Amino acid sequence: MKVRSEVITIGDELLSGSIVDTNSSMIAAILMKIGVEVHRMTSIGDEPQGIMDILLEASRRSLLIIVTGGLGPTEDDRTARAAADAFGRPLTLHEPSLQSIREFFDRIGIEMTSNNERQAYLPEGSKVIVNPIGTAPGFALEVGESVLAFLPGVPRELERMLNDEVLPELRRRFSSGQVILSRTLRLFGVGEAKMDQILHGALDGLSGLSLASLPRYPENRLRLTARANGREEAERLIETAEARLRERVGRWVYGVDEQALESIVQELLRRRGKRLAVAESCTGGLIVNRLTDIPGSSDVLDRGVVSYSNMAKTDLLGVPEDTLNGPGPVSAETAEAMASGAREHSKTDLGLAATGIAGPNGGSDSTPVGTVFLGLSDETNTWSQHTRLRGGRTNVKTLAATIALDWLRRYLLGENPDEYQTPWKR
Amino acid sequence: MKVRSEVITIGDELLSGSIVDTNSSMIAAILMKIGVEVHRMTSIGDEPQGIMDILLEASRRSLLIIVTGGLGPTEDDRTARAAADAFGRPLTLHEPSLQSIREFFDRIGIEMTSNNERQAYLPEGSKVIVNPIGTAPGFALEVGESVLAFLPGVPRELERMLNDEVLPELRRRFSSGQVILSRTLRLFGVGEAKMDQILHGALDGLSGLSLASLPRYPENRLRLTARANGREEAERLIETAEARLRERVGRWVYGVDEQALESIVQELLRRRGKRLAVAESCTGGLIVNRLTDIPGSSDVLDRGVVSYSNMAKTDLLGVPEDTLNGPGPVSAETAEAMASGAREHSKTDLGLAATGIAGPNGGSDSTPVGTVFLGLSDETNTWSQHTRLRGGRTNVKTLAATIALDWLRRYLLGENPDEYQTPWKR
Repeated sequence: MKVRSEVITIGDELLSGSIVDTNSSMIAAILMKIGVEVHRMTSIGDEPQGIMDILLEASRRSLLIIVTGGLGPTEDDRTARAAADAFGRPLTLHEPSLQSIREFFDRIGIEMTSNNERQAYLPEGSKVIVNPIGTAPGFALEVGESVLAFLPGVPRELERMLNDEVLPELRRRFSSGQVILSRTLRLFGVGEAKMDQILHGALDGLSGLSLASLPRYPENRLRLTARANGREEAERLIETAEARLRERVGRWVYGVDEQALESIVQELLRRRGKRLAVAESCTGGLIVNRLTDIPGSSDVLDRGVVSYSNMAKTDLLGVPEDTLNGPGPVSAETAEAMASGAREHSKTDLGLAATGIAGPNGGSDSTPVGTVFLGLSDETNTWSQHTRLRGGRTNVKTLAATIALDWLRRYLLGENPDEYQTPWKR
Repeated sequence: MKVRSEVITIGDELLSGSIVDTNSSMIAAILMKIGVEVHRMTSIGDEPQGIMDILLEASRRSLLIIVTGGLGPTEDDRTARAAADAFGRPLTLHEPSLQSIREFFDRIGIEMTSNNERQAYLPEGSKVIVNPIGTAPGFALEVGESVLAFLPGVPRELERMLNDEVLPELRRRFSSGQVILSRTLRLFGVGEAKMDQILHGALDGLSGLSLASLPRYPENRLRLTARANGREEAERLIETAEARLRERVGRWVYGVDEQALESIVQELLRRRGKRLAVAESCTGGLIVNRLTDIPGSSDVLDRGVVSYSNMAKTDLLGVPEDTLNGPGPVSAETAEAMASGAREHSKTDLGLAATGIAGPNGGSDSTPVGTVFLGLSDETNTWSQHTRLRGGRTNVKTLAATIALDWLRRYLLGENPDEYQTPWKR
């Protein structure tokens, strides 16, 4: 029986438990865009006989085989040789690939080694798959009815080459003719079990639709996939389904598809014509780091201050010494003083602040590890939020930063900051 | 050819790209503890024929097969039935398992459904593997010389059952009696191809050792694994091998095993009794965010300033307006002024600064995207570094932050900051 498609990932590191294979799942998600379903995924080590075995097996049962890994410059990289041996196609030098590897090293100003030359030797009869951002070219081989596409294991090279080079060709050869559309809703503030319960039956009566719940702690995603005979019908299906989902869980939806929470916040700041200053203690720069990951952040972000010491809180933000000595550095008063101080010192419109105990040490009976106070300040008001988070240090940082960004987002949408319900309170 | 061991994970969700399979890698790492190497990992959907095929294949080539997933209470859970059919062992009710499922539901106060009863039906001749924290029991089947262990796919149940129930039995049956030790060297500043070339032949003449190169862009790791008949011999092997590697690539090694670059920097600051202030522009808080991920960072870090606007650079760091108007905000002069300003304003011992163009916009002919200047300042001197990095915005941030931390590390080790060679210059 011919299985439609399979994925093979190659590398000893996959089998030793030292890294998790994320490529297989990425490939499956990309193939899904054109309706090609993966039926089997295999990981195998760098040993040549093992690679040859799985390539031969796969070519007998599958029409499309995506292979990644083992195309690098080192002696452990044996995929091209194993493919050559398995299918009797001797390795030959592919001059244009050698040339583009040379150009790559010229461009980055690093000397090319003879090892890198090996990457330009490909099995005879291969069709080269261009790698625009790395040294290892990919290649495609036809064996009987089957097509094998060999791609580098570096995730960003793999993703780029799959989307730009491989998918258009596959769409032509393998696409089912159906139009497949997906939309992902991104949610923060509701757990998976509760979300599932609320959504039970929401899509009843709609055919051609599937719904996947994809937890991405601390967020959640809902992916709608529609299959239809035309684009218009698929779009209509998605829209109907999205409206039904939003009716039930819309209050937690902050964005769709590739929109990160920080990019939504940036967009809202821009739309409202507001500039922001951030003051962080327990989140240690994570809030501002996330905001600056988004191109254009300098338009709406004036500065960030990570005020670890009390002196920094006084100097940079003007937190009164009485506040630090009285209610203490981890208190609603300090969070509010940090937020308004950040705003005033920077002459911006908004100040956002976080102070707390990220742990594992530094907690006390009155302010245990995980205690976090957030502050938000505008021209007329200053608010604070108290929450207590669980988990290790980086988890507390992540949750506190996400809650702070979500709180700011809702403020920018016109909600009253006092009415915000912090999730994950314990 | 009999392959030593393999892992099979079952579930449609693994093949659709909606989740990443982390179980396979966890199983491999656990088996490594007793010296059992995984030779193949396969993921397959819930379709019965596919499950039967892979079970039969695996039982022909492997002595030990760990299977997870498809043991739950729903109709999609078909692993037990498929195993029964594949090996001709009819499903029979296992009374003690039914009893323990009943007790589980009593304990958590939820009503048991008839679906849950299905989980107590196991292939005839199975040995039950107790699940102390969930409803699905596991089971082991012997087929010819091979053993197949079926375990639930819920990661924490799987991990617990593997460690507590399966491993002791496997140790008895399969352990080689050898002691296996690993050590990982962490390197920054050398590419994989160059490293591989430099290390060629470094371990010649040492037996019982293997070396894996694990790129973790922008860093690299080298993992040594020693197998010996006793712990002492294994330790000696690792030490000999580590010394040989360090002879050749020691200058790029910043830590071992779980030591992150930022935790090494923290440790060095502590050891030298120095406190640090950080001033960031293009890295947007990433440097300070990484430093604050490590517990205890408040002992050595006073503050971080993310000075996106020119006003912030002047206000918070005292960068002279002449410097901003002359050489400009992205210049060696500004980087040095930011570093010394951060140090002086905070009354700390050291200042570290980064300014540059992270992109994708904001570049010019004289300061193209990827241009980065770093600054470092102590009581007596101030230094700067210029580099030009490639890649997208987050890549430039990551590289610039890593170079800054590595530069500071070498300064703390007594190297002259002027002699630092920034990698990835283009």
